[in-house]
Amino acid sequence: MSSVKQESHVNVPYKALTIAGSDSGGGAGIQADLKTFTALETFGTSVITSLTSQNTLKVDGIHPVPANFVAQQLEAVLSDIGTNAIKTGMLCNAEIIHAVAKTLCKFYPESAKGPIQNLVVDPVMIASSGAALLDSSAIETLIQEILPLCFVLTPNVPEAEYILKNAAAQTSSIRSLEDMKLAARALAKLGPSIVLLKGGHLPFFKSTGKALTPEQFETIDDLSIEMEELVLIDLIYDSRDDSFEEQHKEFLRTSSTHGTGCTLSAAIAAYLAQGLEVHHAINKAGGYVQSAIRDGLTVGKGKGCLNHYHHVVPRSIERQTKYNPHPLVNHLLRACAKDWHEYTHHPFVQGIQDGTLPRESFIHYMKQDYLFLQTYARAHGLGAFKATTMAESKAFAEIVLHIAHESQLHIKYCERWGINYEEMVATPESMANVAYTRYVLDIGMTGDLLELGLAIAPCLLGYGQIGNRLYNDPNTVRGDANPYWEWIQAYHAADYQGAVDRGIANMERQAAIQQPSEHRLKKLEEIFRTATRLEVSFWDMSLHRL
Amino acid sequence: MSSVKQESHVNVPYKALTIAGSDSGGGAGIQADLKTFTALETFGTSVITSLTSQNTLKVDGIHPVPANFVAQQLEAVLSDIGTNAIKTGMLCNAEIIHAVAKTLCKFYPESAKGPIQNLVVDPVMIASSGAALLDSSAIETLIQEILPLCFVLTPNVPEAEYILKNAAAQTSSIRSLEDMKLAARALAKLGPSIVLLKGGHLPFFKSTGKALTPEQFETIDDLSIEMEELVLIDLIYDSRDDSFEEQHKEFLRTSSTHGTGCTLSAAIAAYLAQGLEVHHAINKAGGYVQSAIRDGLTVGKGKGCLNHYHHVVPRSIERQTKYNPHPLVNHLLRACAKDWHEYTHHPFVQGIQDGTLPRESFIHYMKQDYLFLQTYARAHGLGAFKATTMAESKAFAEIVLHIAHESQLHIKYCERWGINYEEMVATPESMANVAYTRYVLDIGMTGDLLELGLAIAPCLLGYGQIGNRLYNDPNTVRGDANPYWEWIQAYHAADYQGAVDRGIANMERQAAIQQPSEHRLKKLEEIFRTATRLEVSFWDMSLHRL
Repeated sequence: MSSVKQESHVNVPYKALTIAGSDSGGGAGIQADLKTFTALETFGTSVITSLTSQNTLKVDGIHPVPANFVAQQLEAVLSDIGTNAIKTGMLCNAEIIHAVAKTLCKFYPESAKGPIQNLVVDPVMIASSGAALLDSSAIETLIQEILPLCFVLTPNVPEAEYILKNAAAQTSSIRSLEDMKLAARALAKLGPSIVLLKGGHLPFFKSTGKALTPEQFETIDDLSIEMEELVLIDLIYDSRDDSFEEQHKEFLRTSSTHGTGCTLSAAIAAYLAQGLEVHHAINKAGGYVQSAIRDGLTVGKGKGCLNHYHHVVPRSIERQTKYNPHPLVNHLLRACAKDWHEYTHHPFVQGIQDGTLPRESFIHYMKQDYLFLQTYARAHGLGAFKATTMAESKAFAEIVLHIAHESQLHIKYCERWGINYEEMVATPESMANVAYTRYVLDIGMTGDLLELGLAIAPCLLGYGQIGNRLYNDPNTVRGDANPYWEWIQAYHAADYQGAVDRGIANMERQAAIQQPSEHRLKKLEEIFRTATRLEVSFWDMSLHRL
Repeated sequence: MSSVKQESHVNVPYKALTIAGSDSGGGAGIQADLKTFTALETFGTSVITSLTSQNTLKVDGIHPVPANFVAQQLEAVLSDIGTNAIKTGMLCNAEIIHAVAKTLCKFYPESAKGPIQNLVVDPVMIASSGAALLDSSAIETLIQEILPLCFVLTPNVPEAEYILKNAAAQTSSIRSLEDMKLAARALAKLGPSIVLLKGGHLPFFKSTGKALTPEQFETIDDLSIEMEELVLIDLIYDSRDDSFEEQHKEFLRTSSTHGTGCTLSAAIAAYLAQGLEVHHAINKAGGYVQSAIRDGLTVGKGKGCLNHYHHVVPRSIERQTKYNPHPLVNHLLRACAKDWHEYTHHPFVQGIQDGTLPRESFIHYMKQDYLFLQTYARAHGLGAFKATTMAESKAFAEIVLHIAHESQLHIKYCERWGINYEEMVATPESMANVAYTRYVLDIGMTGDLLELGLAIAPCLLGYGQIGNRLYNDPNTVRGDANPYWEWIQAYHAADYQGAVDRGIANMERQAAIQQPSEHRLKKLEEIFRTATRLEVSFWDMSLHRL
């Protein structure tokens, strides 16, 4: 079983397999396992050992799957898809246990010598509702055939007692932390490298370090004990270096605990599949389960269920993939489609395309555009100030230099149109120009770099789109026949298009890192839309010489 | 079936039920359905109709579940947990179909008159690998017993043809958009309110509007057709107003399509469960599936699988719950525990607690603290500038006023310590003071309001913690015996603690809205840690009169 950390953008997923029963009620069994795998971004497969007809109140029927069909499912998964980790849950009866063990041994030759890497065994015996989930005759087969293959065993206290009793080990009841340690060590002698002995049934008083008696635990809801007075201890025993680790957990007086054991072992398997070291995996899995209980769901009339999806939030912008290299920009262009079209297909642009734009409008535009560039450079200076790395500051500063250079070219180009430099710099900024540039500066001052980037983007991207479209459109009037042909060429040129590509790449990278929430995405849209509308009013101003 | 939009913080989840087969390979069947429900934050339950031994290459075995056990699972779910929406997938054979229909009718009396609200039927017949998933004799039972109950039917083209052939309807092969419309209308006559006829098997040429022939479709990988030349059309027919809607989708040349149909119907059910109007639900579900295909997973040697968890990102900070009202602050205090302890248990604080702090150190501290407050007020003024709502600006301005008021009290308090006002304002800022306050201002200028809040927080929260702890600690020297008792009282006082509570509530609200990514959370931690370390050096400076 390989468990190498993979890059998140490679679409070979981490894989985890559950071999367990089905809980129609969705809170436990393979259902809990698959939900956990999914929430932890791991591809889940499943081998069903038995079906239960079950809800939050009771298990009212069990339909064991024929053992050979269990083996067939396991073969189907391992022979084609494979897996990075496996967990077993409810194994139902001796025949199924034997079939599972035999098939595992076939696929993992290492099992002849010891545990299978990343095999987690949750020795499910009794449902939290009280139903027996393992035939009493099956325990011996479990001990003899599964435990020797097991890497991590995750019993709770009653399960540990039951296994040890049947293994004829010397340990009796588990009533203290010391008992837990003896039991964990005895269990490891049966095969597992690691034993995670779960203390959920054995709360300790913080003050005295004494455990509740079984009678106290049974009637805990009637006792006047504050939650805060108690602590749960999960004990991790690593037989490889004979070491113990205690995980102290708050005791939560909640009934949303259906599926806790399944979920924990599934989370351990998922983290192992992702390549985490086993103690790290157990710790993270414990945290996942505690949160899932704290955020538990009120479902049905009995015990509520864990919230398996507490761990995730919806992705507001799709992931970058080969089919979708620019998810942020695509999203913005879709969200602002109407305004974007008004901007990029403005009558001013049409006049550029067919050469019919009045000369005075173009001259008016050129003067204002020069003034625009001054503040546009400042906006990039602001970016250089707000950057948190030298590389970012450098990138913004380079754009300032680029704009300064463009601005010189602009002067020369304007001279050819008879626009005098002194007159140009003395021109008052039009209201549309003030509105646009100061809006960009305000976003830059109050927002972060991504927001500044989006305020700048409509100018950058829009001119790039317009330049490309007009250059490639057969209807465009070209060459000497169009006084604006040089303008079109400038925005179609490789250096401008390169700047557009870099700008897009920057925004996409920022968005991928930031994973903006839905709420924040709305704000980003609003910035992009407003700057787009300001471009429209810049064209209006230019066309009508306002 | 109720489907009222619930507040996300109420822990009664949206519920969806799948009645379908199990795919051990995890890509289709109830596995795909449960993964979809989970990714869409809906609590999934499942009734398994049959087990398949399956991987990405083939279905090599089917184990139908006894029909009475299927009914028993369905009873267990509906009698206790209930559901807001249901989807059916592979129903296997006539007996099972009959058992499902009969049980549904028992729980939904409305079925006597027409479709069951939010029942989505995916008429699964053939796996994408080619295996037959419905006994040929069962189609009639499906038509007679399930379709009349169905709210949304989601066949693909071959399934639509097969149903219509068996229903002895007049439609023959579906080869054009017009054929699709006729078929959808004919299918709706069999019961469903809505028919979503999926066009995945019938790509159209964008240029001509003509569909590929079945022969072309079979050999599509060998033809020199660019993906971009083709479009897929999903047709939605609503029989309630006899209207059609076309969903145009890009044709993706990918083999990661195993489980597409299951996933789509599951996503529709999840969105219906969340209370979305049905056309909206179908549209959103279509988007979810397209993204899941685009982000498809390379799994096994056959057809790859959809990426069901493309839709979510890990939650970096736990959700606010009754067990966990301050997840952000808890996270920060855990992440910066060492620095935090050094700050709140500094020798300076110890000296305050037992009254042994040298008088000169306290006077030095009081002078610098007065200067600190000046810049601290400015930092809140910056917050008022960067706020995006009047309410936020007002809240920051109120804190400025509060600090100004405190600053006056500070002067009076200092007079009693013999500190002259003129001398105090003439004191140069210590380096520790400059470092701290300018760091806060820089964060405020370059970051957003949450970042500013975190730079301010260690001062606000730490003094509150210290005030509470010293006030309640029996070891604290109290009253006249401790020259610093008044200082302790001030930070334990209700008005200061109220400000702490409001500050925490603000940060938690911002964090909940922003859902910072893991990457951003690291930055937030860094700010909180740095400001905490600056508090430590402020104590050092004060104690040693630097």
